[in-house]
Amino acid sequence: MFQCIGYAADNAQSPLRLIRFDREEPGEHEVLIEVMFCGVCHSDIHQIRNEWDNTVYPSLPGHEVVGKVSKIGGAVTLHKLGDIVGVGCMIDSCRECEACAAGEENYCHGPNGWLATYNGPMVPKAKAPDGKNSYGRDNTYGGYSTHLVVAEDFVLKIPAGLKPEEAAPLLCAGATTFSPMRHWGVKAGDKVGILGLGGLGHVAVKLAKAMGCEVTVFTLSADKLDAAKAMGAECVIMEDDAEAMKKLAGTFDFILSTIPLRHDVNPYFPLLKRNKTLVAVGALEKMEPLNNMLTAFHRQGFSGSLIGSIRETQEVLDFCAAHKVAPEIQMIRIDEVNDAVDRVVNGEVRFRYVIDMASLKGR
Amino acid sequence: MFQCIGYAADNAQSPLRLIRFDREEPGEHEVLIEVMFCGVCHSDIHQIRNEWDNTVYPSLPGHEVVGKVSKIGGAVTLHKLGDIVGVGCMIDSCRECEACAAGEENYCHGPNGWLATYNGPMVPKAKAPDGKNSYGRDNTYGGYSTHLVVAEDFVLKIPAGLKPEEAAPLLCAGATTFSPMRHWGVKAGDKVGILGLGGLGHVAVKLAKAMGCEVTVFTLSADKLDAAKAMGAECVIMEDDAEAMKKLAGTFDFILSTIPLRHDVNPYFPLLKRNKTLVAVGALEKMEPLNNMLTAFHRQGFSGSLIGSIRETQEVLDFCAAHKVAPEIQMIRIDEVNDAVDRVVNGEVRFRYVIDMASLKGR
Repeated sequence: MFQCIGYAADNAQSPLRLIRFDREEPGEHEVLIEVMFCGVCHSDIHQIRNEWDNTVYPSLPGHEVVGKVSKIGGAVTLHKLGDIVGVGCMIDSCRECEACAAGEENYCHGPNGWLATYNGPMVPKAKAPDGKNSYGRDNTYGGYSTHLVVAEDFVLKIPAGLKPEEAAPLLCAGATTFSPMRHWGVKAGDKVGILGLGGLGHVAVKLAKAMGCEVTVFTLSADKLDAAKAMGAECVIMEDDAEAMKKLAGTFDFILSTIPLRHDVNPYFPLLKRNKTLVAVGALEKMEPLNNMLTAFHRQGFSGSLIGSIRETQEVLDFCAAHKVAPEIQMIRIDEVNDAVDRVVNGEVRFRYVIDMASLKGR
Repeated sequence: MFQCIGYAADNAQSPLRLIRFDREEPGEHEVLIEVMFCGVCHSDIHQIRNEWDNTVYPSLPGHEVVGKVSKIGGAVTLHKLGDIVGVGCMIDSCRECEACAAGEENYCHGPNGWLATYNGPMVPKAKAPDGKNSYGRDNTYGGYSTHLVVAEDFVLKIPAGLKPEEAAPLLCAGATTFSPMRHWGVKAGDKVGILGLGGLGHVAVKLAKAMGCEVTVFTLSADKLDAAKAMGAECVIMEDDAEAMKKLAGTFDFILSTIPLRHDVNPYFPLLKRNKTLVAVGALEKMEPLNNMLTAFHRQGFSGSLIGSIRETQEVLDFCAAHKVAPEIQMIRIDEVNDAVDRVVNGEVRFRYVIDMASLKGR
């Protein structure tokens, strides 16, 4: 056991505040990571405010974590002391179900699902059947803290070509948008629509551009147009611009909604080509009623998609290093995090806050 | 020009009544069909009651039509006098768009879409660009009538192994349920769920069984359980039976909803395996809000699907002849059609009314 510090919420209304807590020393197959940077994801806010109705308090968020390996278990072979590594949304999974066997741990359908970096286990107080994994935990604390202890095969390698602080948002926002683009076969020359230009949306635009796609951003925020254009995207002001929407009918190969709240996807089905899919990754909640007359008309689909697998998360890191893609980040100190939360909710961030965790040490 | 008679509605509230109207003689590539039988589809009711807000009156429905070829245009090569043939939901399409070129006329994205057997053109008063097809029409009248005139390549061959009256429901209910099963790759050994056991649902059960699937019917009607079991299906009383639903979690390869009204598909996503799709063919309208937390959790999809192509419609007819699959029909006379409409709406039909059009002649 060793002592850590971090920022956690005590209840759905409270701001994040400094807490002290103990972590277990790394086990045989685990590594201890000294956190350097952590992104502020909209999910962190959903979770600390209990908007998914499953938060265990104190709630210490953070699943876009980059740090340095500072201790390794005796059986660790994948990482060594001093490596710059990343941790995304998962720190373990059942390792036995068909999804885990297929390398899609993000769809683990073991008895407890995957173990979330914070607010895990997904099924609170569940116990591991064999003690190999960490399911005995009542809760997990994320990356708004000094240290993480993670199963070595759930730790990502940060390629030398990425700045560690810019790599952080790729661990959730990057994987979450990259995974569905890969799964639905997005390729060079495709026309891709991105709904929303926030933390996820702006990464999605950059990834799709780097894949060689023609990208259109649909946004409610006229003040984001210049940024979208600078990223190489065409722009449409959502729904307001009926004429622009009409011109785009039947032209899209893929549409990804990154809007983090309940919204209406019906206006976008007529924009898809036949047999194509609109995937929503931002809003994990009930959507506005979907009009099946629209989806039937050219056999179009709606689908959800949940983060990315460990393999896909490593792929998006390597892809970004190879294609010189970097999220646009604003660095903050840990004591600015509550203001940052408000600004994320108000859509003021451009485009991802990343906490410099050096600001937490020694407090 | 020659005179026909049929049953049509004058407005959204009126019953169907006998009308007399003229049809054009068949053109070079068209055949004249003397109607023998016509199924009563729930869509007929949506249309005569203007529930899709696009009905042109008088509205003369019927798109599950079986009849005899009684005259052919000079250039017709596909059919000959006396052939027993079928007409489904379409009597023409643009023949030029990518969907038509791919043999998926049911997703025609020409300027007017496909030409519906009744209440066509889909875009009223649109004109054909080249006169080849029938888009100059202001409205089309369906199979609740003595005769149809149809482009020869939109006319299906009724295989000798099918009774003509039992073939009728296959032209819409059969194609509409067969097409998505083929498109989503349903195969022998798959576990398939069917929501609703009406005109479409009971055909879907029989088709899936004939494909070698394990079939579960989800119904609200306890009085349909015996019929479903007789068709070879397992049964679950929808939503009421939480325990049964829980046991089925993660076991289905495909779920087809044939429910003809707005409904909630959320309870069925947890029943699907990862990466699998729930397709709704019964309700062409806004559905209850879809919970993206459920769809994301195992990357499951929702999709619409619209009738079937001409090729698929012929395939389902041939498949049913080969596998001795027949819809369960109740024959009615044309003067019983208004009662039949009420009974369809009340869920009393077992399972498809088919009008014997001999009852219309000579009136």
